[in-house]
Amino acid sequence: MTRHFNHDEILNSDSFYRRNLINCLSGYKSLNLIGTQNGNGETNLAPFSQIFHVGANPPMVGILFRPHTVKRDTLENILETKFFTLNHVTPEFCKEAHWTSARWEGSEFEKTGLKSVYQNDFPAPFVEVSPLKVGCKLVEVQTLKVNQTVLAIGSIEHIFVDEKGLREDGSLDLNILDSVTVSGLDEYHRGEKIARYAYAKPDQDLSEI
Amino acid sequence: MTRHFNHDEILNSDSFYRRNLINCLSGYKSLNLIGTQNGNGETNLAPFSQIFHVGANPPMVGILFRPHTVKRDTLENILETKFFTLNHVTPEFCKEAHWTSARWEGSEFEKTGLKSVYQNDFPAPFVEVSPLKVGCKLVEVQTLKVNQTVLAIGSIEHIFVDEKGLREDGSLDLNILDSVTVSGLDEYHRGEKIARYAYAKPDQDLSEI
Repeated sequence: MTRHFNHDEILNSDSFYRRNLINCLSGYKSLNLIGTQNGNGETNLAPFSQIFHVGANPPMVGILFRPHTVKRDTLENILETKFFTLNHVTPEFCKEAHWTSARWEGSEFEKTGLKSVYQNDFPAPFVEVSPLKVGCKLVEVQTLKVNQTVLAIGSIEHIFVDEKGLREDGSLDLNILDSVTVSGLDEYHRGEKIARYAYAKPDQDLSEI
Repeated sequence: MTRHFNHDEILNSDSFYRRNLINCLSGYKSLNLIGTQNGNGETNLAPFSQIFHVGANPPMVGILFRPHTVKRDTLENILETKFFTLNHVTPEFCKEAHWTSARWEGSEFEKTGLKSVYQNDFPAPFVEVSPLKVGCKLVEVQTLKVNQTVLAIGSIEHIFVDEKGLREDGSLDLNILDSVTVSGLDEYHRGEKIARYAYAKPDQDLSEI
């Protein structure tokens, strides 16, 4: 059986119900902990599921932030210092990753026990235990007219990846890295490979690679 | 062992290698087939991994398109007609979903055998077999200065979801819907739940829900 919601039914539904439903619609989302620090060197760590590929040459990544109408430490730190890190999450510290979303006083690194590490003089903290760490520098900010959502674009300055997950063709085996994916606001999953397909051509059966 | 790439090493790497690596960095990505038609009613279907939550009230979704420097049917159809559909992919038609990315002459629905369906007079085609179908109307377009990537924002007008995957709190069980997630450009995965956590509070152990 199929359940149907039209626009008005979505608008008139309970706000908690609506938030859960709409946050699940896009499907499985990437999960990264973003590490930052403010001008005084105070560190911050927070989970984000709206990070996406913007370009490979030059290499860039985008992050969507909820409207900047309340205090948002991560966004404010990035606007102040221009630097941030992305850190994949594994099942071993998935609970601590979720816990960084609480309204802590002080650094989420210290409070949740996730140890920070600085590498190659990059001026933002990485999550030591993460198998994939990316250091980024802010290059553009845009604000959406429809709801003041903020889109930040970062240039990729450093990649640190556990070699076991790096293939010869440059792709990453996220199953081996054991990266976690998130659905909705609060549900975490492992990935299990179905298939990898070659470049698709018309009228030619797809081969697996 | 950790492998390190700095910005210059990324820029100087082989273009195929770089594209694979950078496309994998964000982690597992959502996968949707976008259904559109042009002003003549000719339909199009294409896979997208850069679709993300923009807001729940009003409900909106964003899509990032590669720079509009070559013919891009999906983007052009959306700019012309304003309407598009999002359709989750399951393992049963994952191969056909990938195949829609080939440079077909004519409609990918017909060429790949994925049947289209029109529902509730919505003026864009859905994928009949998809367990989660979303009808969207274009409300905003922005172009990124850094690389002319196009960001389109859609208002969510209709949701059609298989009831087996809809929970009482509005969240979707993507494991039950059997939605597929993608890594990089060509690798498809199932999700396997690790845990769902309650709203996080400081100094209180997290409970599972």
